[in-house]
Order: sequence, then structure tokens, then C-alpha cells
Amino acid sequence: MKVIALSALATATLMASPLVESAKQAGLVAIPESESALLKMIDNPNNPITKKKVALGKQLYFDPRLSKSGIISCNTCHNLAEGGDDGVPAAIGHNWAMNPHHLNSPTVYNSVFFESQFWDGRDPDLEKQAQGPIQAHPEMAATKEHVEQTVNSMPEYVKAFKKAYGKDVNVDFKTITETIATFERMLVTPSRFDDFLNGYPNALNKAEQEGLKTFIDKGCATCHTGVALGGSMQAFEITAKYKHAGLGDFKGNKDGLVKVPTLRNITQTAPYFHNGGIWSLKESIAEMGRTQLGITLSDKEVASIETFLKTLDGRKPQMVFPQLPASTDTTPKPNAN
Amino acid sequence: MKVIALSALATATLMASPLVESAKQAGLVAIPESESALLKMIDNPNNPITKKKVALGKQLYFDPRLSKSGIISCNTCHNLAEGGDDGVPAAIGHNWAMNPHHLNSPTVYNSVFFESQFWDGRDPDLEKQAQGPIQAHPEMAATKEHVEQTVNSMPEYVKAFKKAYGKDVNVDFKTITETIATFERMLVTPSRFDDFLNGYPNALNKAEQEGLKTFIDKGCATCHTGVALGGSMQAFEITAKYKHAGLGDFKGNKDGLVKVPTLRNITQTAPYFHNGGIWSLKESIAEMGRTQLGITLSDKEVASIETFLKTLDGRKPQMVFPQLPASTDTTPKPNAN
Repeated sequence: MKVIALSALATATLMASPLVESAKQAGLVAIPESESALLKMIDNPNNPITKKKVALGKQLYFDPRLSKSGIISCNTCHNLAEGGDDGVPAAIGHNWAMNPHHLNSPTVYNSVFFESQFWDGRDPDLEKQAQGPIQAHPEMAATKEHVEQTVNSMPEYVKAFKKAYGKDVNVDFKTITETIATFERMLVTPSRFDDFLNGYPNALNKAEQEGLKTFIDKGCATCHTGVALGGSMQAFEITAKYKHAGLGDFKGNKDGLVKVPTLRNITQTAPYFHNGGIWSLKESIAEMGRTQLGITLSDKEVASIETFLKTLDGRKPQMVFPQLPASTDTTPKPNAN
Repeated sequence: MKVIALSALATATLMASPLVESAKQAGLVAIPESESALLKMIDNPNNPITKKKVALGKQLYFDPRLSKSGIISCNTCHNLAEGGDDGVPAAIGHNWAMNPHHLNSPTVYNSVFFESQFWDGRDPDLEKQAQGPIQAHPEMAATKEHVEQTVNSMPEYVKAFKKAYGKDVNVDFKTITETIATFERMLVTPSRFDDFLNGYPNALNKAEQEGLKTFIDKGCATCHTGVALGGSMQAFEITAKYKHAGLGDFKGNKDGLVKVPTLRNITQTAPYFHNGGIWSLKESIAEMGRTQLGITLSDKEVASIETFLKTLDGRKPQMVFPQLPASTDTTPKPNAN
């Protein structure tokens, strides 16, 4: 099986289709087929991926006791059973607070490929990002001390940290959030689009290949590029079009730039845009044509691009639902207020 | 391996220890070792267990889109990564509402063994129970129509229902909640206590066996009996002791009876009692001695009973985290208000 696949790959590389070439020239990058190449791409030299850290990070990712209320986990807003997000326009967190800028929760799937994290790109990587929502008052509303005391109150967690980092590990907020980030780095979802770029021309049918061509020709790949088909900071016409009453006053970063969302698994991450303003994928495509590219896409072109985008629905890592250690008498009590 | 186990069982049955006999006489019942015996015990003739229903029920159990807000699933309050509950004194639901009677979320694990469902025992089985929290305003706050429209809006769900029930299935609220209940019926956690009753005398060490003896001798098994070590309706001194300001006015059922919580996985389901009033397991044991049995348990007796209770930490079903179908244009939109 492996031999056949490699042989097919070799053949395909020799006769790479003009469309594959043009996709690559447009900056589109496949998730590598080889596990070692992928690991190299998603690893962080300052926080290397290990199996023990991933397993522990998974538990922490699903543990609502890291939040002040005891009922909100990372997975609440970045739900791995859904598209890696929450499916609502603006995140709802502690005390049912809506994100104050009415910001939509981005997917965690493939976020390892983003050049920076958050809609305003303020954090350079997932390690830093993971510290934010846990402490943000309208999200998990915890303090560093709460998180540290919670994790350290459970011998099973402490033991797992020692196994992952060595017996002298300091189970502090930084180490805890870095461990969560290590788990998140593994949340990569290769799709038929990657298969196509990786040398399997039949992975996309004719209509899908036409969609990819339209996507490139119309200029979508100018911003939606790289492995994530997104993830860089770009100018975004939010002040004109998307700033309206009740939807916050988010202005992007200091230069007014906004993070381009990934298009991977885009069929599963409605509603769209930083404020979750549009539910329909077709409408969103047309809107981006108008607002960002200054063109009016025909219904046929919109449908064609949508056909391509559906090929970005990825194969999610199959994972066993974690079991969390039991709280102890020293575990901080939840506080819903 | 199987032969050895059966042979050990046979031997043990012949020379069943007096403690096993006394446990059985006290009404304590093991989760059967044999899968077929277990299936017979947990099945519902009116809603028979099938693999397809269990798999579909798992998806629905984890799907927050069944709630009005789109962010609360069955698993939010009955978290299978924790003790099958939420670890907070009173359930927090839609719009951050606290349960109006300040009732603590019971564990879903082993709830199939309860004689009735809810703290006031108002529902006879999980099929009926599953209809409640989805519609309760301080919980998932959905209408039947919302749930039906949501599920029917996703072709993948409809297809799965057809596969599970036949192509003429009516994917209505009753069928949807019955499917969730089928999944819940499988959430059984055999423990070392069951191994002990099932003929493995070494499954409990000496201290644990002494704890079991104390548990029986002191009268705990009067109410905490059956397979669940709980699950029946009993008089409970709530009006005198547990009704205090701010903790609701729950009075039990029409006769003042309250459902006895299961003791399985009790180390993982703090805080305890219908109002989550006590966090410490030791304190809870002492309190039950005073309030329900009218005796003062010595510290040693309390510790001994706790040692036994820890043997009820069960082996949870290992499960793959489900992937949910993507919403479509006809999926009802979430409403956080």
C-alpha cells in the first residue's frame, strides 16, 4: 500500500499538473503526507512535541476546572467535535459574557500554521495564546494562581507533568499553558486538497479543480494562502462595512490589520468573519469578492469557489476522550460569580 | 485468560467469603462480569440497545446545538471526562442561570441502574429523563421544535437515524431523546468492588474489605443498595438540616422522598448531596451517619467507609470523541438570550 502510494506520488511529481504548479505559485502549501515532515512543520524548538505532553495537554484542554466557574474549558469555545470553534457569532464565556468586541472564536484546528494568534495577531504562537482566554474575564476568568493551584492539587496531574518534563518540573502557569499548546499543535486536518497537491490528481474531481482555479484566478489566494489558507495579517475593510451598532468596535492591530481566518474546515465554522456577521458560506464568498477584491463574483463563480472550499474539510485526528483526575480537598472551589 | 478467570470465579463461588454473602444479603449487587448479562440488565425492551443507536446517541449527547444557545450539550453538566457531572454545587445553564432549586447535577454514569430519574424521582427511565434538561429553561432552554429542526437540518444525522431505525423513521423529539438515552445506558463503570463480589477475593485489600463491612454494619447499605449503591427514593432529612437560605426550597417528591445518589465514582462527584452542600467526602459520610442513621461515626469508622467507597471508582468506557455533522443553511441559529 505504502509502495503504491509512493509510486503514485513519484509519477505525479514527474507530471505535476499545471493547476498544482499554479496553486504552489499562488503560495498554497499542502500539509505534508509524511509524518516526519509534518512534525517538523508543527514543532516548536522551544517547546518540543512529545507524546507525554500531548496526552497531558489533551486532559488540560478538556478540563473545565481551569476556569473560575469550573464549567468552561478550552473545548467550550474551541470545540473539537465541531469545527474547532463554538458555532456562535461571538464567544460566550464566564457569567454568560459575550466577547466585548463581539469577536468570533477562531478554530483551533490548523491554528499551528497561523503566522500569529488572535484576530489582532498580538501573540506569536499557541504557547503564548493559550495564556489569554484562560485569564480573560469574559472567557475563563481564571487567575494564574487558580490554574496553578488547581493542577497542583491533583497528584495524578503532578505525576504526569513529572513524567513529561522530569521530576524537577515547576508546574507553573507557563508550563501548563505550553502543554496545552503542544496538544493544539497536533490538531492538524489534512484534506483532499492536500492529497491533490501531494501528487494524487484524482483526489479532486473536475468541478473541484475548476473551483481551485477560480479561487486562484480571482485572487482569493492573495490573503488565503500558505498551509492554513489564511493566518497572516491583512488589511480588512471592517470599519466601513462590518462595524455596525452592537457588534463592537474591533479595529484590528495598531496598523488596522486583521488576521485572515483559515479556510480549512470552513464548512464547519459558520458564522463567518471576525464578528460572525454572515452565516452563509456563499454569501461570505461574494462579500469577500466585493469588499476585499473589489469585484462582483457571478453566482457561478461563487458556487465554484464553494465547491473547492468543501475539499478543505479535513481528516480530524481521532482521539480518545480523556478522563480527568478527581479533584481533591485542596482543589480551588469553583466560583460562578 | 478467560478460562482462568472463569475457573477463579467458580472456585470463589464455592467458597464465597462471609463478607460477599453479607454484602449480597444487604442488597448490594455487582455489575455482571459477562457482557451479555450486563446488556440484559441495562437494556430497555421499549428502546433496545443497538450499536448504531449508541454511536448516534453519543454524537447527540455531545452536540451543543441541541440547546437554544448552541453552546450547552448534555455533556456540559454531565461531563464524561469528569465524574459524569459538572463538579459545581448547583447546575449552571442557559444565560448562566443557576438551578432554581439549587440542585446538584447527578452523575450520568451508572444512572441506568436508578429506579427512577431526577432528585424527586419524577421520571421512570433515562428515555423520559433525557427530554427534561434539553427543554428546561435554566438548562438547555430548547423547544422540541428547535431540537427536531436542528437534527433534521443535517443530512448526516438524518442518514444515521435511518440506518439506526429504518428508512421510515420519524426523527422527532421522542426518537432523538431516546437515542441519547441508549447511549447513556452504556455508561456503566465496573470497579474493583464488582470484581470482589464477582468472585475475585483479592480485588479488595484487607482495609477495603473492612470498610465494606463497616459500610454494611453501620446501615449505609439500607439506602445505598442495589447495583448503583443508590437510586431509590428515600426519606431524607432535608427540611431540617439542608434547607437554608439561598439554597432553594427543594422538598423532594410529593411524599417528601429524595433520590439516593449512587456511590459509584463518588470520589469524582463532589460536591455532595442534592444541593452540593458539602465538598468533603469524609464530612459527608459523618453527616449521613448523624442525619440519616442517627449515630455518630468515629473518625476511624468514617475513614474506613471512605476507604471502601474509593473501591467504587470504576473503569469508564473508553470512547472516541465524536465528530458532529456541520450545520447547514437550515440549521436553527443559536440564541443566547
